[in-house]
Amino acid sequence: MTDDPPSASPSGPTVGWVQPCDVTLPGPFALELGGSLPSLTLRYETYGVLNAERSNAILVPHALSGDHHVAGRHSAGDAKPGWWEAFVGPGKMVDTDRYFVIGVNTLGGCAGSTGPLSVDPLTGRPYGATFPEITFGDVVRAQRLLVAHLGIRRLHAVVGGSKGGMQALLWALDHADAVDRIVALACGLRQPPHALALNAAARAAILADPRFQGGHYQPGAGPDDGLAVARMIGHVSYLSPSAFQRKFARETVPGSKPGDAVHWQVESYLRHQGDAFVRRFDANSFLRITRAVDRFDVTGRPFAPNGPAVLAVAFSTDGLYPPAEARALAAAAGPRGAYLEVETDAGHDAFLLPDAGLFARVREFLR
Amino acid sequence: MTDDPPSASPSGPTVGWVQPCDVTLPGPFALELGGSLPSLTLRYETYGVLNAERSNAILVPHALSGDHHVAGRHSAGDAKPGWWEAFVGPGKMVDTDRYFVIGVNTLGGCAGSTGPLSVDPLTGRPYGATFPEITFGDVVRAQRLLVAHLGIRRLHAVVGGSKGGMQALLWALDHADAVDRIVALACGLRQPPHALALNAAARAAILADPRFQGGHYQPGAGPDDGLAVARMIGHVSYLSPSAFQRKFARETVPGSKPGDAVHWQVESYLRHQGDAFVRRFDANSFLRITRAVDRFDVTGRPFAPNGPAVLAVAFSTDGLYPPAEARALAAAAGPRGAYLEVETDAGHDAFLLPDAGLFARVREFLR
Repeated sequence: MTDDPPSASPSGPTVGWVQPCDVTLPGPFALELGGSLPSLTLRYETYGVLNAERSNAILVPHALSGDHHVAGRHSAGDAKPGWWEAFVGPGKMVDTDRYFVIGVNTLGGCAGSTGPLSVDPLTGRPYGATFPEITFGDVVRAQRLLVAHLGIRRLHAVVGGSKGGMQALLWALDHADAVDRIVALACGLRQPPHALALNAAARAAILADPRFQGGHYQPGAGPDDGLAVARMIGHVSYLSPSAFQRKFARETVPGSKPGDAVHWQVESYLRHQGDAFVRRFDANSFLRITRAVDRFDVTGRPFAPNGPAVLAVAFSTDGLYPPAEARALAAAAGPRGAYLEVETDAGHDAFLLPDAGLFARVREFLR
Repeated sequence: MTDDPPSASPSGPTVGWVQPCDVTLPGPFALELGGSLPSLTLRYETYGVLNAERSNAILVPHALSGDHHVAGRHSAGDAKPGWWEAFVGPGKMVDTDRYFVIGVNTLGGCAGSTGPLSVDPLTGRPYGATFPEITFGDVVRAQRLLVAHLGIRRLHAVVGGSKGGMQALLWALDHADAVDRIVALACGLRQPPHALALNAAARAAILADPRFQGGHYQPGAGPDDGLAVARMIGHVSYLSPSAFQRKFARETVPGSKPGDAVHWQVESYLRHQGDAFVRRFDANSFLRITRAVDRFDVTGRPFAPNGPAVLAVAFSTDGLYPPAEARALAAAAGPRGAYLEVETDAGHDAFLLPDAGLFARVREFLR
């Protein structure tokens, strides 16, 4: 880039200009539910400097709709910085003056890592409907390969929210030898049944779209309408009732009439979220990832006595992963577990909103 | 019917065999948002005996998916009794040994009353997409015409849950001279913004179905897939997280595989609810009624000082219409208002589940 790096963003100091990298790891990559991928490409970004001991790396896995682009901007034309810009940067909760931070697009995703949009080397055509079912165990094993590729034997921490928190938790359970501490925000030991129900309705919206064709759609001709509805369903669960009240109340769209398809401001907001999601997401990816989320359940699995320290963070009005789920997670971690509940009216999406108390507690935990 | 009347149902004593009646009221019936209907047919049922003074009538309006068939059975072939069988019958919460109870299908509905499936007398064809937008004010004015047709000048009570409770509330505000008391369960003074968001997602699912065709589908060839998804979205909001846990936990469908369209028991339940709804509901009706629900807001409207007594009943885990909404309703009714909160883990659907404490309190209020 020829642009001068920006020194600050609306969220404070920024990591500045960043560029994604791709790494292709030779296969086969075996999958937990059976089968394997002939090769595995992961798209990632890094922020900050890896120290000489390679001991200051923090991995930040993303939630359903995030990606490898955690912080900073790719170019001056970017409308928005990375999805956790408020949390990751110089002096921020995850301090890039101190840590080397890694963002990586999930296996099965659609932002550069191997997923349904990728070309299957065995056929020369995109996987599409033939992409196998994956688990978060697979997702995290792929992340470990990337970490090893970067020459890092042990992560200082894994920090993630929502579905990213589930992945942080699997680092603590499956890779206790390779991480010192994890922070799991807005999640618990499992996908709770009511969240599973929401995903079931979202998937039904995609499968009901005639353009889905059993997943065998052509790129660019997928079930956009069904995918948009699926995203709308998700968004209803991301905000608390009081956040819906504060942001939209019962305002109508100026000039709209009672029978219009979009009459309420909240209706307009959800439609916008649905349409924006369709432009950057793939339906087969959505199905693979939500099924992996639904499958996530580590209830009853033992934490290693000398394994990573665990900080579980709950948000008081999170209806998707209520505080009881995070409390169960902290309790399961035993003496290595700690629990923080953040008071907020924002609901599940609070894990994307800056909070001074949260930042201070996590910074302390990361030291 | 030649069958002997049943003396009891699984829910205790029953009103027995019942038959719906239709009444056609001459038009035009003017609508709050403009326009009118040339004539108005209402389908209704009654249970118990109207006393000589015609002073013991209780109207029971229904919620989104209910109808006029509140209690009893139409024939021995009925798989299920009316939708509030547990609440309405001899000796029950609404005691048919004491009261004359009226159930009526809503204006705009699809179970016999004038709605989008009805024939427009001006064209000789079903209204379909041309059916006008309605309000709950219209719905309740139509109910008052039915009550007058039955020779009743003043109702002993109106008792309704969820959307039926909103209608009860409009009786108290718009028809204070024609009702002595109302019981509004599981609702409040308005459709809250988060409930509006859920309905917006549900409507989007219908509008996304290519068979919807702007509402101009042929009867029997409507947007069944979209309507089923809309119903699934609704059902996610009817149960509390703990009810989802208790009823389905994380059980899978025996023999199903991870990538199957229906893998989880809760997924199977939601699909079943969606499919069953499509068999008895019409998409244009769903759109008209949910828009009327979303429009419902009587915040700030004064209750008549000597108007009907108001009992607002909340269910502790109701996430769709949380207790705060019913508390606001009771407070708005001033000295004539009373509030009852029922402890339950069932969520919004608790208004369909028998509860001894609730029954005792409502029976006392009705006397």
